[in-house]
Amino acid sequence: MDQVRTLGKQLSNWGRWGAEDERGTLNFITPEVVKRAAGLVRRGQVFSLGLSFGADGPQIGQGGRVNPLHLMTAVDQRLPGEYPDGFRYADDVMVLPLQCATQWDSLAHVHYDGQLYNGFPAATTTSAGAARNGIDKVGPGIASRGVLLDMARAAGVARLQPGTAVQPADLEAAARAQGVRVERGDVLLVRTGHLSVFKSDGDRVGYMRRMPGLGMACAAWLHAREVAAVASDTNSVEVIPFEDPTIPLPFHLLCLRDLGLTLGEMFDLDALADDCAADGVWEFFFSAPPLKITGGIGSPLNPLAIK
Amino acid sequence: MDQVRTLGKQLSNWGRWGAEDERGTLNFITPEVVKRAAGLVRRGQVFSLGLSFGADGPQIGQGGRVNPLHLMTAVDQRLPGEYPDGFRYADDVMVLPLQCATQWDSLAHVHYDGQLYNGFPAATTTSAGAARNGIDKVGPGIASRGVLLDMARAAGVARLQPGTAVQPADLEAAARAQGVRVERGDVLLVRTGHLSVFKSDGDRVGYMRRMPGLGMACAAWLHAREVAAVASDTNSVEVIPFEDPTIPLPFHLLCLRDLGLTLGEMFDLDALADDCAADGVWEFFFSAPPLKITGGIGSPLNPLAIK
Amino acid sequence: MDQVRTLGKQLSNWGRWGAEDERGTLNFITPEVVKRAAGLVRRGQVFSLGLSFGADGPQIGQGGRVNPLHLMTAVDQRLPGEYPDGFRYADDVMVLPLQCATQWDSLAHVHYDGQLYNGFPAATTTSAGAARNGIDKVGPGIASRGVLLDMARAAGVARLQPGTAVQPADLEAAARAQGVRVERGDVLLVRTGHLSVFKSDGDRVGYMRRMPGLGMACAAWLHAREVAAVASDTNSVEVIPFEDPTIPLPFHLLCLRDLGLTLGEMFDLDALADDCAADGVWEFFFSAPPLKITGGIGSPLNPLAIK
Amino acid sequence: MDQVRTLGKQLSNWGRWGAEDERGTLNFITPEVVKRAAGLVRRGQVFSLGLSFGADGPQIGQGGRVNPLHLMTAVDQRLPGEYPDGFRYADDVMVLPLQCATQWDSLAHVHYDGQLYNGFPAATTTSAGAARNGIDKVGPGIASRGVLLDMARAAGVARLQPGTAVQPADLEAAARAQGVRVERGDVLLVRTGHLSVFKSDGDRVGYMRRMPGLGMACAAWLHAREVAAVASDTNSVEVIPFEDPTIPLPFHLLCLRDLGLTLGEMFDLDALADDCAADGVWEFFFSAPPLKITGGIGSPLNPLAIK
Repeated sequence: MDQVRTLGKQLSNWGRWGAEDERGTLNFITPEVVKRAAGLVRRGQVFSLGLSFGADGPQIGQGGRVNPLHLMTAVDQRLPGEYPDGFRYADDVMVLPLQCATQWDSLAHVHYDGQLYNGFPAATTTSAGAARNGIDKVGPGIASRGVLLDMARAAGVARLQPGTAVQPADLEAAARAQGVRVERGDVLLVRTGHLSVFKSDGDRVGYMRRMPGLGMACAAWLHAREVAAVASDTNSVEVIPFEDPTIPLPFHLLCLRDLGLTLGEMFDLDALADDCAADGVWEFFFSAPPLKITGGIGSPLNPLAIK
Repeated sequence: MDQVRTLGKQLSNWGRWGAEDERGTLNFITPEVVKRAAGLVRRGQVFSLGLSFGADGPQIGQGGRVNPLHLMTAVDQRLPGEYPDGFRYADDVMVLPLQCATQWDSLAHVHYDGQLYNGFPAATTTSAGAARNGIDKVGPGIASRGVLLDMARAAGVARLQPGTAVQPADLEAAARAQGVRVERGDVLLVRTGHLSVFKSDGDRVGYMRRMPGLGMACAAWLHAREVAAVASDTNSVEVIPFEDPTIPLPFHLLCLRDLGLTLGEMFDLDALADDCAADGVWEFFFSAPPLKITGGIGSPLNPLAIK
Repeated sequence: MDQVRTLGKQLSNWGRWGAEDERGTLNFITPEVVKRAAGLVRRGQVFSLGLSFGADGPQIGQGGRVNPLHLMTAVDQRLPGEYPDGFRYADDVMVLPLQCATQWDSLAHVHYDGQLYNGFPAATTTSAGAARNGIDKVGPGIASRGVLLDMARAAGVARLQPGTAVQPADLEAAARAQGVRVERGDVLLVRTGHLSVFKSDGDRVGYMRRMPGLGMACAAWLHAREVAAVASDTNSVEVIPFEDPTIPLPFHLLCLRDLGLTLGEMFDLDALADDCAADGVWEFFFSAPPLKITGGIGSPLNPLAIK
Repeated sequence: MDQVRTLGKQLSNWGRWGAEDERGTLNFITPEVVKRAAGLVRRGQVFSLGLSFGADGPQIGQGGRVNPLHLMTAVDQRLPGEYPDGFRYADDVMVLPLQCATQWDSLAHVHYDGQLYNGFPAATTTSAGAARNGIDKVGPGIASRGVLLDMARAAGVARLQPGTAVQPADLEAAARAQGVRVERGDVLLVRTGHLSVFKSDGDRVGYMRRMPGLGMACAAWLHAREVAAVASDTNSVEVIPFEDPTIPLPFHLLCLRDLGLTLGEMFDLDALADDCAADGVWEFFFSAPPLKITGGIGSPLNPLAIK
């Protein structure tokens, strides 16, 4: 853990946007960045990057995360009162772990040494939710320039092997090969192919237990490029099993707690990647606002990429 | 109800986009429409139109709709296993009626005479959810040109009186006064001021039981203009009490079932309206994808308007 | 259905305990009956007849019934405030279909022709719950004499074949062979062996889709004996597939709606049956109060038999 | 806390019933005890001691505990398939904190110094529930002799003042005045009148925040008498505010963790107390099995007293 502590101090953004800041690197998304990002819409084609929320999701119950429970509370129902026959309605309720499918992790999701991003005490999160750094603090959504790096395609494989740690040099090489630059305020989407395999084999345990992903060293790379947020097609963005088996989820700790960098998980990047490979354009307008869940640790969503 | 049946037949879009279509007027949003909409981003300013999801929401338990229940399932939690002290995480679950705050109604939400939009049998909705016209059928999100008509401002009041039925002529007048035209493929946002009052007085019963809104005749107006979707700052978009006390929710029936026009409810339009009034620009890029809830009747969301 | 209507009229207990009665045949349980039942406790041995409530339950999601979702909302949690280290607690929440495992059906569970037991309109059940005949109307619990009829043992098999309809003559024969009489105010427990098979093979679909159980004619037999309630080791007490494939759940309709006779489902009778077979005593004190769920259609429980 | 640690060691039942025991003082309830308890049923009168589970419960959301959410998942619903008109059903789901109304605390509910009752590591409770000492380990229910001590009546008041710590001498005096002895294997019910006040004034905050209850010294008294379980009409059995403001819930810690003594909370003892006062008989048969919730920290229930 001392390695994380040392690196965390080097990469820290605490105080960078003021003592009360709860948005971290999302502050890199300025109106100017948004405006330029909108200019990337050339064909008007919209890609949904969200998984379905339903019983066939990827969850295996680990840590209490189950697939969503969808309950119909009205089916072919009349209104109460004396109305002539005619009007009928349906209504429904959902019970869902907020990180059960495509989702953003808030900056309150993980921590170490008793402090969250920007030094807020970990004890600000209670059974009432996150008083600090919750997903409701993201502000007016997450809309920016998106850049996709397709690591599987770059490696010429359907999927990076589970357990493969992507290194900064790999990101550099993929960007170079694709002819795209990662810039300040970007949302970086990293495709490993892991979700494609799950979509075809339906092996939940295979999808959730081991996965390719960013190695710990990528935190510094993201910090240097002033990326606003990172999302991937796996459940953790980072590699599992961990690079150092004694340090769990080091990339989470560094990004969420030290950089204040929001992470997106289980983004479905397949159709978008196919399109980018076809037209050679790996940048696009990206719009992915979380639900404004009061004190929420994460939020389900349906992210859009528009080219 | 015969009035609804007659009008419904006149305004019907059944078959217009094929016998299997489940998206209705969202089909008006072509890539060309999206591309032009993106061109409306001039300053890069993002407005979130979503309410918070939490215990302080507007619900009063009517018809089983309650405010969301947010449950922390992990607080300051260690990972299972033999890890050195350090890593801690938080996790959460939400129980929410899918229409408890800012939301889209799917085309499966209401019906009459045993049929949903495009003639699908009402019995396709069961306790397993909506097999037809569910919110998961919206396709790659809802992103288009948005136009705001501020009916309260047009009338020079903080809020239209609850019970006020907005008529087509009122919409025309507001558009003219604002200098904006509603066009094919637009998402029309109608501000009544009702939510502003709730945000300041916190009177849930006042907000949920009576409201200003579109009158039944507006369905024909929307049909003629080929609007893609309509959203408002109330719980029903349409006026309550109903114009004809024997016909409940006629505008819902016509839009969702006959036109196949998606409705958005409890959108917070106040900050956006202030900005539009200030710069005189009432059109913008609008991005509001529902969650892809399998068989969902509605979906919570956080809509964005970008100017 | 006319067969059910005719039989229902013959067996009707509507009005028998007054126009406002919501307890039906539970009225047969008088203090005198309870007192004598307590006298059956000879050894002080307690048998729990309840299944576990957890992820390994029998549900397959049919009609929205899933196995319960158990969520830990606090684990190793400190109290908020300035306490010295020491006190920690755990807390939890459950999401459960009220009929997901061992349960009572209330008299509001099924109906036909728009009326519930005792003539209350079916429309008294709304999305707010059952205003009439709900499980909260059972009064001070269900405690009485219990009698077990072990139909599998009587037939010399581990389980009656799924689809076998138990007839009144079978009940008579089993009672005679066991040397026990079913009397006014009794709770009758009928063991088919179906649950024993599920406990050993874990085949949920096999357990939930087809089952042995009481035939329609048993309703008259129970009526004649003035039984207070009936429970079995299957999901429906009655036989599935139905005796007449055009009439679904006729025994439910007759018992719950016409007789006002409460049904208990998925009772685990195996250990009790073994004990009764060993000592030849098939009667006992039975205590099985439902939770007082306001407006509840059913209630989970943990029934006890005490010998 | 050192006071708790010292006392805890003195009163410890760890190892008393073997290294694997998870039932604690419920082991005092032998078949002989049950048999004699059944002999206390003289009139056959049944008292339900359970609160209702519904929106009008006592919870105020503290620590995430809310009143139960009751969702109708079917109302006046047809079966899927081609059945003649007739059969209709209703079905429901409940979302409930397991300690939201009348409930048992399992021995996994609180702990200190990293160990639960009988020395099991606190880490045996995870987000998957309690692997040790959960409510599912109670065995075949809780049925025994019940004894009611009515402390409010003994003091000649409607309710002991919130904040009043009941001492062993008070229990002794009440027992003497009522002419009853607390014996090995008994379930002791302690009435303070606090719930009566809530039932009449509906003041949830008043009910949940401050309450009369057992003082820390009562743990030794219960230990000496070899009581099997203790329940009261408050949310904590013990007094709040705490006797020593630096030690939260000391009675919980001693009973649940050191003695292994199960606690029952929010039992409605009013009607039973009136009856006991009328006939002078303060002992009865008591039956109160928890639901067998796998890994459950607590369980809702509907306890019965039978005289």
